Amino acid sequence: MKGIGYFTISLLLSSESEEKDLIKKLKELGYKVSQGKSGTMDSKELIAAIETTAKREGIFQADCYRDEHVVYHTALSALRGFCRGEIGIGNFLRTIGVKFVVLRGPIDITRRNLGEWVAVGIYGMVGAPVKGFEHEAIGLEINSI
Amino acid sequence: MKGIGYFTISLLLSSESEEKDLIKKLKELGYKVSQGKSGTMDSKELIAAIETTAKREGIFQADCYRDEHVVYHTALSALRGFCRGEIGIGNFLRTIGVKFVVLRGPIDITRRNLGEWVAVGIYGMVGAPVKGFEHEAIGLEINSI
Amino acid sequence: MKGIGYFTISLLLSSESEEKDLIKKLKELGYKVSQGKSGTMDSKELIAAIETTAKREGIFQADCYRDEHVVYHTALSALRGFCRGEIGIGNFLRTIGVKFVVLRGPIDITRRNLGEWVAVGIYGMVGAPVKGFEHEAIGLEINSI
Amino acid sequence: MKGIGYFTISLLLSSESEEKDLIKKLKELGYKVSQGKSGTMDSKELIAAIETTAKREGIFQADCYRDEHVVYHTALSALRGFCRGEIGIGNFLRTIGVKFVVLRGPIDITRRNLGEWVAVGIYGMVGAPVKGFEHEAIGLEINSI
Amino acid sequence: MKGIGYFTISLLLSSESEEKDLIKKLKELGYKVSQGKSGTMDSKELIAAIETTAKREGIFQADCYRDEHVVYHTALSALRGFCRGEIGIGNFLRTIGVKFVVLRGPIDITRRNLGEWVAVGIYGMVGAPVKGFEHEAIGLEINSI
Amino acid sequence: MKGIGYFTISLLLSSESEEKDLIKKLKELGYKVSQGKSGTMDSKELIAAIETTAKREGIFQADCYRDEHVVYHTALSALRGFCRGEIGIGNFLRTIGVKFVVLRGPIDITRRNLGEWVAVGIYGMVGAPVKGFEHEAIGLEINSI
Repeated sequence: MKGIGYFTISLLLSSESEEKDLIKKLKELGYKVSQGKSGTMDSKELIAAIETTAKREGIFQADCYRDEHVVYHTALSALRGFCRGEIGIGNFLRTIGVKFVVLRGPIDITRRNLGEWVAVGIYGMVGAPVKGFEHEAIGLEINSI
Repeated sequence: MKGIGYFTISLLLSSESEEKDLIKKLKELGYKVSQGKSGTMDSKELIAAIETTAKREGIFQADCYRDEHVVYHTALSALRGFCRGEIGIGNFLRTIGVKFVVLRGPIDITRRNLGEWVAVGIYGMVGAPVKGFEHEAIGLEINSI
Repeated sequence: MKGIGYFTISLLLSSESEEKDLIKKLKELGYKVSQGKSGTMDSKELIAAIETTAKREGIFQADCYRDEHVVYHTALSALRGFCRGEIGIGNFLRTIGVKFVVLRGPIDITRRNLGEWVAVGIYGMVGAPVKGFEHEAIGLEINSI
Repeated sequence: MKGIGYFTISLLLSSESEEKDLIKKLKELGYKVSQGKSGTMDSKELIAAIETTAKREGIFQADCYRDEHVVYHTALSALRGFCRGEIGIGNFLRTIGVKFVVLRGPIDITRRNLGEWVAVGIYGMVGAPVKGFEHEAIGLEINSI
Repeated sequence: MKGIGYFTISLLLSSESEEKDLIKKLKELGYKVSQGKSGTMDSKELIAAIETTAKREGIFQADCYRDEHVVYHTALSALRGFCRGEIGIGNFLRTIGVKFVVLRGPIDITRRNLGEWVAVGIYGMVGAPVKGFEHEAIGLEINSI
Repeated sequence: MKGIGYFTISLLLSSESEEKDLIKKLKELGYKVSQGKSGTMDSKELIAAIETTAKREGIFQADCYRDEHVVYHTALSALRGFCRGEIGIGNFLRTIGVKFVVLRGPIDITRRNLGEWVAVGIYGMVGAPVKGFEHEAIGLEINSI
């Protein structure tokens, strides 16, 4: 299955050396690609970083509420998945260091007729505010846009 | 980062032809590996499938409550992440078709001194009970065991 | 404020004699209108009723996954609001008797340039399975479509 | 159905010119009425505004813990419905501008024998901290007092 | 602190031989006392058992919706605390064997002027559907009635 | 049933004069015992107090991530039970004054073969930021360690 989720996760897991080729391939497949990093204890900082990066990379236009609204809810749900339930980081005495990816394009390469979709993925470390006291987590959400 | 989460997700995303080599590599790295598939509208069926498969593949011994308890909660949290919030499938009028992976071994290959951990990953399709009305989702949880 | 939420709630609260005029007015304002009733202890029955009614009234086309997906999530969130937290009816030993409304059209009559949106509203009684042991509740969600 | 929820929602949706007559009618029907506005990113500010306004308008006496406790939980649940799940505003990078209403009186006008009940309703806009990037939401809860 | 919660928990933890004296003491302190047991995988069965037992023991009158509504929500919240989050038993592939207690009387013995309150407590085992694969859990909620 | 949960709750409910004997008995039964108090509106302060106290009393070693991770999640779930759903204190305009207990040892005195487990219990008052406007609550979680 070569879907927007598969591609989002693949880019999340890519090393820096693998990213370049994968991004090139994703663009050829018709995806707009946005990615960034965030280290924070504050949920709203991560959401803001995702939205700002997506806007800058042309995932949505700054003045388009329709699209901003979809990206926002997609990011919020991805974060809910990353947190494995209710959303919270510093308020639960934990900190995160993550990479995030936003893709916009077909839901998968065999269903191009379904119009444009957006995927937000978050992958990285979550843990106590103590060096090395952390493990991995991932979150993903997909919506039409 | 080559952690138990990274490996779990990599195996989840592998095609059937890629699985064999990856499983071999994971075993060389010191992981016990279990995987299976489930198509269901019933949360408890998926949890049961994960536990049964993990038991059969030696992730934990059938008579060890300690380990069963960890695998259970790890599976439940992975499912919560897959559902992006409260757990529910058929009761929310949706159906899933997923692959799941359970790994047991080091938290990552540079922190082997931290003992054994278990990761449960769930990846696949979630959607309406209508053919083709579905998109991808993923869930992952990691605990010491 | 004359928004799609305001109109949805107004129709939910309308008596049978008021409905006809309001629906006529909403259609003149550019809304597609769908409404129905459901008495159930089963969340998925209510969601199915909302989707089926919306489809029949032309809120979305039966073969359009994009739109079905939006209506589904909008209904699910409206139900979450109706339940004031986690979704559950019979599994929490309660029953509901509700009217639901689905509107499709502008987000409000002064922001017609924002394209089409969909609102799902649910209003009615929730209570114990004992006659007269019930009080009102309401849920509403709005998304672009 | 002319219940305390119906009246609460009706007052929430009233324009300033309609409020006066409706409040007069509600008082004649035996309701104590309280309403106010709040624009905030902070859940506790809204809860405090609801409680303070309700106290000032005589919905409950300042020294009565029983009643304060009921109003508090009713407001909290109404906010949960408004948020369509877990409670959060600024921590999820969103802001709200709402009207709230607290009524105290009969559960509905045909069940006056059931003693006094309280309803808290919240209606207004929720959105990104960008002008015009917002849509409507509503929350309602009802308890005996 | 000798509050209704303390007494509820004390009765939950009492052995059969201790119960008699404690119940006698609680009645002298002005409490109505109800207790029972439930072994189930179904949330609504436990809620029904709590309500039925409380009604039979005179915690509330069968025809009093006001009081039934308070007992219901108190039981539901106690169950939420027992489940440590979202409510679910069999749907999460687990089973419970619990004792429950419902008390009605003063919030504590030094605040008798605050009127009548009700506490629901649930204590017992939760675990896999395998003999001996279980650990303890507790839930408690308190409301005015 | 004489389990780690029973002992944790018993210590939570003990008066200062009863604590000494109970702690002595628990140590004889093979438990490590830790307890403390916290008055706060901030969830992360309570979690930090529990972790710090547990570490100081030898429940886990400061440099052991495995054990810290278990204690953290056990505390978080106990807090979720105390809050009877989503975690929140000051953000929901309430304050808490609690005693907490952390025990480490056998799951119960008849199942010593199941290795070491940890229980976190939280008991005390939750209420409005007004003197005397408060009632009791309790939370408990148990995990293998």
